[in-house]
Amino acid sequence: MDLDFKSISAEITSELTAGFSDLSRSLNRAPVLCAVAVDPPADTLTYMRSKRRIAKNIGVEFREVVLAKEEASKLENKVIELANDNGIDGIIIESPLPAGFKIGEVAEQIPPEKDVDGVTSRSQGLIAVNRELMLPATAYAITVAIEKLSVPKGSHVVVINRSTIIGRPLAMMLTNRDYTVTICNSKTLNLRAIARSGNVIVTAVGKAGFLNADFVNSDSIVIDAAINFANGKLMGDTDYDNVRNVARYVTPVPGGIGQLTPVLIYRNLLKSLQKTHEIKA
Amino acid sequence: MDLDFKSISAEITSELTAGFSDLSRSLNRAPVLCAVAVDPPADTLTYMRSKRRIAKNIGVEFREVVLAKEEASKLENKVIELANDNGIDGIIIESPLPAGFKIGEVAEQIPPEKDVDGVTSRSQGLIAVNRELMLPATAYAITVAIEKLSVPKGSHVVVINRSTIIGRPLAMMLTNRDYTVTICNSKTLNLRAIARSGNVIVTAVGKAGFLNADFVNSDSIVIDAAINFANGKLMGDTDYDNVRNVARYVTPVPGGIGQLTPVLIYRNLLKSLQKTHEIKA
Repeated sequence: MDLDFKSISAEITSELTAGFSDLSRSLNRAPVLCAVAVDPPADTLTYMRSKRRIAKNIGVEFREVVLAKEEASKLENKVIELANDNGIDGIIIESPLPAGFKIGEVAEQIPPEKDVDGVTSRSQGLIAVNRELMLPATAYAITVAIEKLSVPKGSHVVVINRSTIIGRPLAMMLTNRDYTVTICNSKTLNLRAIARSGNVIVTAVGKAGFLNADFVNSDSIVIDAAINFANGKLMGDTDYDNVRNVARYVTPVPGGIGQLTPVLIYRNLLKSLQKTHEIKA
Repeated sequence: MDLDFKSISAEITSELTAGFSDLSRSLNRAPVLCAVAVDPPADTLTYMRSKRRIAKNIGVEFREVVLAKEEASKLENKVIELANDNGIDGIIIESPLPAGFKIGEVAEQIPPEKDVDGVTSRSQGLIAVNRELMLPATAYAITVAIEKLSVPKGSHVVVINRSTIIGRPLAMMLTNRDYTVTICNSKTLNLRAIARSGNVIVTAVGKAGFLNADFVNSDSIVIDAAINFANGKLMGDTDYDNVRNVARYVTPVPGGIGQLTPVLIYRNLLKSLQKTHEIKA
């Protein structure tokens, strides 16, 4: 059992290239994704560049609105302007925002059909009532991995994360897909026993080495959705060398879930535009 | 361990009476809840009458809009009219609707601040991002019972239901309250073992006798949120006589969760009006 995340990503990329090419013809222009940032640090700029690179690859126009720190008060109006602009198809608000701004609150101005990050309460509500439109990219990537691994319907997925971008939407998305889901949080009692009782364990805690061999059994599939920097290295939550000796499969970090997240933002954009313009996928 | 649902209901009722009395003074009128039904069967009429009785008791004006079967096509416009009417504070669409109408779809016209049944995707989205406003009454009643039972934070609640009015919002609401939650569905593998592993089991399957002693251990708390008619009797999902000999506690049906649901609709109305009019509770 092993997933080739690179080829899954390549497969999605080529599907997107074809889809956006059709769309551009019927729109008479390239689809436009706009990223909004305030005084972005180097990491954010790197991430924006990688999204721009993918956009170019698949025929999407990537625009950036970068406000200086002193212009932060203009952020909400800028988002409203983009929300009302018919020439903008998707909007991303880049984290981090300056102190006093919460992405969740600013993002509420984005209408569901442009919310390619799936962060607004309206997007999450559509997921909760099984009318999915935009899916938060990390949660989306995890469901793609679970489906690619052919995890049988009804299986028990234990999710160690309850954020609004991973655990909560993921629980609803997996429920929509006929899986049984447990959402754990920092107060969870007997976390290791609960994790061991699952068929799949999703971890996104943010602590390198957190998920050790106590959390798994010989049948466990571990999906590591964390990104930690420890000892100058990028790693997930999993004590990889020990856990992979026990568990059936562990997704790698880097080169696992994170390989899929940027392309899935564009899959959100494509699906939403196809729906708005009633083009069959 | 035992809950007195009658006195919990009475306690909520007296809290509501005081709250609505304050509100009526500041609104200069009684708050208004409007129920909309199309060709309602006898059961629905009975339920509407019981809501009307509670309304009278606590100082809320209860209005009814009952459309004949031939007028069903006017339903959506009627709901939009009520949604825009400043004299209407809460809207309930009564089930069942005639074939071809889905409550979830018609209800989407209700703005979040009037959605006292908590059924719209916008209400569910607010729950999902931990900014609860309106809570679906059965899910709400279950959280009240869990809190009254002083179930420790972090405990594991296994929910056997994934509907948009019980299981899904309940999972998010319990996550908001620091519980660990498993959402099961009809495809769930090893359901009995998962139920036995929980501290609390919530059942709302709709089959009398479904939840038998195999689902529980001696520490289990069973919250039965089902309403079934079997052999001319009202009963829940639980094989009550057998399960209560094994488990720590089982909520009764009738006289359990169902005792709380109608009053909690009015608690939604009160909280929303207090928020809109910025009155402190």
